[in-house]
Amino acid sequence: MSPSKQPASHSAAPTPVDSALYQEIQHFYARQMRFLDQAMVEEWAQTFTDDGVFTANAHPEPSVGCAAIAGGARKAAEQLAEQGIQRRHWLGMLEADEHPDGTVHARTYALILSTPRGGQAAVHLSTTCDDVLVREEGGLRVRRREVRRDDLR
Amino acid sequence: MSPSKQPASHSAAPTPVDSALYQEIQHFYARQMRFLDQAMVEEWAQTFTDDGVFTANAHPEPSVGCAAIAGGARKAAEQLAEQGIQRRHWLGMLEADEHPDGTVHARTYALILSTPRGGQAAVHLSTTCDDVLVREEGGLRVRRREVRRDDLR
Amino acid sequence: MSPSKQPASHSAAPTPVDSALYQEIQHFYARQMRFLDQAMVEEWAQTFTDDGVFTANAHPEPSVGCAAIAGGARKAAEQLAEQGIQRRHWLGMLEADEHPDGTVHARTYALILSTPRGGQAAVHLSTTCDDVLVREEGGLRVRRREVRRDDLR
Repeated sequence: MSPSKQPASHSAAPTPVDSALYQEIQHFYARQMRFLDQAMVEEWAQTFTDDGVFTANAHPEPSVGCAAIAGGARKAAEQLAEQGIQRRHWLGMLEADEHPDGTVHARTYALILSTPRGGQAAVHLSTTCDDVLVREEGGLRVRRREVRRDDLR
Repeated sequence: MSPSKQPASHSAAPTPVDSALYQEIQHFYARQMRFLDQAMVEEWAQTFTDDGVFTANAHPEPSVGCAAIAGGARKAAEQLAEQGIQRRHWLGMLEADEHPDGTVHARTYALILSTPRGGQAAVHLSTTCDDVLVREEGGLRVRRREVRRDDLR
Repeated sequence: MSPSKQPASHSAAPTPVDSALYQEIQHFYARQMRFLDQAMVEEWAQTFTDDGVFTANAHPEPSVGCAAIAGGARKAAEQLAEQGIQRRHWLGMLEADEHPDGTVHARTYALILSTPRGGQAAVHLSTTCDDVLVREEGGLRVRRREVRRDDLR
């Protein structure tokens, strides 16, 4: 069984990414989420473009730009450290399409786990995560991320 | 470290799928489960062959054919909408082998999450999912799915 | 958007694995964890090298060698069978780098689910899993695994 033929890349419609890019996105997300969960705030922020936008249905306003995105992560990391909580962000069920403008639209489910020190691991949140990815200096970056919590629909 | 050599494809034994097909199955499942979780019932049913069979150890009888599979999904979607519950089906830990008859046998774990509107996300079920996949009109389809809930062994 | 160029393989620094190897590791983990969850103790132990080392922050001492690793799994499997519990080990969020000595360092998150017979599936543990992988007789094997439970930091 050979892989299906994809529409030619000059098509005006989005086309599913190829195997190598699909895998690269998985790898990118694994690194990115480890940065977040290990409170590597600067590394986390640098996975977004300089003008990156982070929107969430749990936040009144989007975070715009690396500095704002780093700031939000720093504040969250400090609170978790105080509370002795280890978060783990899983992104999975990846769908990814390349658009004619060269961007990649990547949609995932996110499962966020929370474990208090000495306590019981549990599901914290279930969300969706819709990204617009671009390539900069060889690597992927998030230009726009939209996170929607399943409890806030 | 280069990938291991796989047995030649004319072998009579099942052989692990190659990278491109492994990735394609991951992508297929991501799309398929999004159809289900977004109550896109017709699109969900069309990920099965016309004579597709869906069996589950929680159901007394298998669902046979696209129409029956769509019907089951429609009923479930209506109940969830009434209850204000968002389900998320994660398929992961994929093992996939190509069989001499051209079918692909794909085995996954399924994790089903449930989030009530305004409430706490939680694990709903843990199951296994064993599929026989075929290629039709360029895309993958499920010819036979067997879902076994871990609580009903 | 084409995949980024990776550093040349003669580099002295670790380099991200290519698509084929990334996928092969995913496939390897799916098989390996199914062996564990199905109490296929010998098959599980053989996914480690003969001198494989399994360390965990929950264990006072590492398990060293296939026989010790098999023994630990057998004991755990017997206890779970007595208790009527089905465990599922999910490894995800894979990051993998090839090192100059030919080993692959693979880092994952692990989510362990637990379902009692007739009962409710739930998160059992959240951990990280850091592996040193090598190739033997064509297949991947774990030379060293370090599991760290998030509750025992």
